Amino acid sequence: MEVDRNGLEVLDRDECLRLLRAAPVGRIGFSSGALPTILPVNFVLDGEQVLVRTGVGSKLDAAVRNAVVAFEADETDATDRTGWSVVATGKAREVGPEEAAELDLSGLDRWAPHGDGRLIAISLVVMSGRRVVATVGTG
Amino acid sequence: MEVDRNGLEVLDRDECLRLLRAAPVGRIGFSSGALPTILPVNFVLDGEQVLVRTGVGSKLDAAVRNAVVAFEADETDATDRTGWSVVATGKAREVGPEEAAELDLSGLDRWAPHGDGRLIAISLVVMSGRRVVATVGTG
Repeated sequence: MEVDRNGLEVLDRDECLRLLRAAPVGRIGFSSGALPTILPVNFVLDGEQVLVRTGVGSKLDAAVRNAVVAFEADETDATDRTGWSVVATGKAREVGPEEAAELDLSGLDRWAPHGDGRLIAISLVVMSGRRVVATVGTG
Repeated sequence: MEVDRNGLEVLDRDECLRLLRAAPVGRIGFSSGALPTILPVNFVLDGEQVLVRTGVGSKLDAAVRNAVVAFEADETDATDRTGWSVVATGKAREVGPEEAAELDLSGLDRWAPHGDGRLIAISLVVMSGRRVVATVGTG
């Protein structure tokens, strides 16, 4: 098991992808008007790219097309102080209707009640993951 | 109840702060080497600033001091498709030992087993929150 200097287990790419496939919610980090922001999104994994739907004309929609963005998912247990996180950086691009028709988009409904959707793909170019394993309390 | 154009309930600042106080984990969005990234952090709220510990010399530590960063927390239920999220943008600064001695830092242990901590405060200058309420399925 590879461990970083903070004592966290380093996850390999396959393990990162496996965890992402099971994660119900992820988050996109991007710049909006030169300010960093983060928005939670429902997503599905298609191979090594993340697919999300954005509302047409939304802040996310305007900011992420052809931009370099961060994508993150995690799962934590505050009681046990265990958990994992996967962070990736990649380029976001709009997916056209012809390409979208070839993709399995089940599970990719937006939770927001209104608003049209646009399909965005984020390539997971750089990806890293960490796991915190339970340790004996240090008092 | 104020609703945005996507049908999400808009949360006021007091409600955002109340939700943040109860959230066990948050996430910081920042630029590291010109690339956007997101890292999950344990945090406490002190008035209207977020306090986190970073490892001395870590990527987060190097990147966020005196930088404008995003801070996000959320809670989602994938089964019900309900949840909330709060996103803030503010300036991060290092908190010196004298100021730190005046703060209530209980609950701010880092989960990572190793690494020294440095205390960082993030002012919540701009903050917004949304809640997704359960809707009848649209088929």
